[in-house]
Amino acid sequence: MSYKKYLVEFIGTFYLVFTIGAVLLLGGDGVINAIAIGFALMVMVYSGGYISGGHYNPAVSLAAVIRNSLPREEFIPYVISQTLGGTTACLMINHFSGHLANYEGCAFNIFPMIVGEFLFTFALCYVVLMTTTSKAKENSYYGFAIGATVSTGIFTVGSILCHGAFNPAVAVSLGMMHLACWQSVFVTIGANLLGAICAGFIFKYLNKIKIDTNY
Amino acid sequence: MSYKKYLVEFIGTFYLVFTIGAVLLLGGDGVINAIAIGFALMVMVYSGGYISGGHYNPAVSLAAVIRNSLPREEFIPYVISQTLGGTTACLMINHFSGHLANYEGCAFNIFPMIVGEFLFTFALCYVVLMTTTSKAKENSYYGFAIGATVSTGIFTVGSILCHGAFNPAVAVSLGMMHLACWQSVFVTIGANLLGAICAGFIFKYLNKIKIDTNY
Amino acid sequence: MSYKKYLVEFIGTFYLVFTIGAVLLLGGDGVINAIAIGFALMVMVYSGGYISGGHYNPAVSLAAVIRNSLPREEFIPYVISQTLGGTTACLMINHFSGHLANYEGCAFNIFPMIVGEFLFTFALCYVVLMTTTSKAKENSYYGFAIGATVSTGIFTVGSILCHGAFNPAVAVSLGMMHLACWQSVFVTIGANLLGAICAGFIFKYLNKIKIDTNY
Amino acid sequence: MSYKKYLVEFIGTFYLVFTIGAVLLLGGDGVINAIAIGFALMVMVYSGGYISGGHYNPAVSLAAVIRNSLPREEFIPYVISQTLGGTTACLMINHFSGHLANYEGCAFNIFPMIVGEFLFTFALCYVVLMTTTSKAKENSYYGFAIGATVSTGIFTVGSILCHGAFNPAVAVSLGMMHLACWQSVFVTIGANLLGAICAGFIFKYLNKIKIDTNY
Repeated sequence: MSYKKYLVEFIGTFYLVFTIGAVLLLGGDGVINAIAIGFALMVMVYSGGYISGGHYNPAVSLAAVIRNSLPREEFIPYVISQTLGGTTACLMINHFSGHLANYEGCAFNIFPMIVGEFLFTFALCYVVLMTTTSKAKENSYYGFAIGATVSTGIFTVGSILCHGAFNPAVAVSLGMMHLACWQSVFVTIGANLLGAICAGFIFKYLNKIKIDTNY
Repeated sequence: MSYKKYLVEFIGTFYLVFTIGAVLLLGGDGVINAIAIGFALMVMVYSGGYISGGHYNPAVSLAAVIRNSLPREEFIPYVISQTLGGTTACLMINHFSGHLANYEGCAFNIFPMIVGEFLFTFALCYVVLMTTTSKAKENSYYGFAIGATVSTGIFTVGSILCHGAFNPAVAVSLGMMHLACWQSVFVTIGANLLGAICAGFIFKYLNKIKIDTNY
Repeated sequence: MSYKKYLVEFIGTFYLVFTIGAVLLLGGDGVINAIAIGFALMVMVYSGGYISGGHYNPAVSLAAVIRNSLPREEFIPYVISQTLGGTTACLMINHFSGHLANYEGCAFNIFPMIVGEFLFTFALCYVVLMTTTSKAKENSYYGFAIGATVSTGIFTVGSILCHGAFNPAVAVSLGMMHLACWQSVFVTIGANLLGAICAGFIFKYLNKIKIDTNY
Repeated sequence: MSYKKYLVEFIGTFYLVFTIGAVLLLGGDGVINAIAIGFALMVMVYSGGYISGGHYNPAVSLAAVIRNSLPREEFIPYVISQTLGGTTACLMINHFSGHLANYEGCAFNIFPMIVGEFLFTFALCYVVLMTTTSKAKENSYYGFAIGATVSTGIFTVGSILCHGAFNPAVAVSLGMMHLACWQSVFVTIGANLLGAICAGFIFKYLNKIKIDTNY
């Protein structure tokens, strides 16, 4: 039965990464990329949320483990499913884009990158936990809120301070599609996990009495 | 009584195709076409969903038959209503655009077209079934999720890999408005139906115990 | 007590018309006007809907009278409140824009104008009645659906086939702000009322058994 | 326990002001800034609303005091939390933007500024009170309505008639980031508070019988 969760995480991460790759490498005019990516995440959260929680993001899964809404032993299988989904999307995008993306060298400013990725991964995990695992969880807005957080992050810090991944599976995909160099990918992943950990503990402080409740 | 369903499907497909034709042939600036089309689908899903299911798409109707949320004998009448709605919209658009759209010859890459149409018709049918016919169906977000899936498909693969129809009734309309040649229309329809079939069976796997429940 | 309804209709129509005037005459870049106008309507529908029904549009009020969700004797006071709200907004916009808008002569094609205004006023009234007065009325999406219908109408037929008013109070305001000549305003109003009447009767056909229920 | 509210208000106002500063000073293309800012507010309202009410705005807190949904003694701590959140965001933006924004002298038209800030702060407080503290408060749309009101205000009067702050904490932040001169900041704050007071009393008139109910 639990294979269903992994399939849902695979499908959702596939579409998220496929959308990112397609708007960046196949076309799209840039203005509205943030909306397309936010929508892709939103529709997958709304579709699969009731089966897997709709993470599609190892950082969100980590925050969910800290908050106790994801059993600890599910963490690795979730990350594997998400990474496989992202990798599959990358292979397809690389096939269709027909060429490797242009990126030159590996110059990046490490401090802005850490701050940008940290801030919006924190915001994303905070929004996910507060809208889907708190006492306010019976609502219809959670998917829109989650997708819109990623859109806002891309509008604000994405490609200015940092890559705008807010998601280790996406960070790896950016590396695979030659949209980021691997050093910056590892910095991004570190900042993402740090943001997730902070969000998990802030959530626990803000919702003390409800911490034992499972998702 | 069941004529009401057909009228609702007629109205909804009419407005969907009218919007597509209007933004492509009468004006619109291209950036936001995907939003306009997604909105048109969304408002019709929200309006008529409680009467007909709000398919406006033979591929969605096929997925609904596989999932048992649409009785098998309703499939053909649904497709006819949808096609009539789309055709009526085409006739109006052709009248107002006053000229046939420019398209030259019929060169298209069949493999990207199949992949693009398959991927987002699958996503669309998956989102429809998961948000409107699963145990999560009591929600207020289904129409937005469904419309946003089409917007995302248009932002990503539409007019790059494929026509961005994700809907046989829309594919036929693109042919009628001379926005696509008929060979590519038939390829599109085939990919759409394949995506619908896969989504229907994936849904059945993911929601085994609830499969007998009607919509 | 019923003065509250009129105040709500006044406020809502004021903000709708103010937004239209501001994006057209004070600035705005055109691409996103349709979104701004749809948002203005949406937020007012969500805010005041539980008091007045959130019409802000004589055509919607007419459709509501036909459907029995607005008492017949409320129709004229509603229209007066809406017109006063729109007029107040026009006076402010005219003051701030500091000059009369440029429009030359009064050339317009009457048939496209009637079709465009009819089609989307019908759609708007259909969406309003189906999402707020049918058995599906307990939902959280009605305001977004209603606002998005107007956005879609503006994206598709607005300023191409017609003025994109879909609302007699807006049509009058366009005349007052010199954005439309009065002949085209009267044509628009006629088409709006026709769309409303059709939507009212289509709704009655589609929802026969629930027609006596008040809003 | 009540420290939680202040932390939530701090976090929410931080992200709102950070988004405003980032789109204005770090990049962004202008067209879509209003959407990014509205989304930032929306996601924070949806996340923290069930703990603090999700004000992130002293004007909204004032309207909530008038309506009795915020205890009088909470007003000052709320304003302090909001101001600290905004100030922290400003310091970060000023650090990353690396230079002070260009603004020359302090020429502004006081009357349009008062009208623009008044109108949309009134609208914002009206939408907040009507969607979150009225008998319609059990809904999933309140955050979208609140965020979309700010987006509409920015689309219409923001940077044309006024700064488009609609929020004293944002007004102060604009001063700190050198995006507005302090005279205009004080005018803005006055207009914001006036709008809040009017919205509070209009709400009381429209919802007489429910005034004793707490949030």
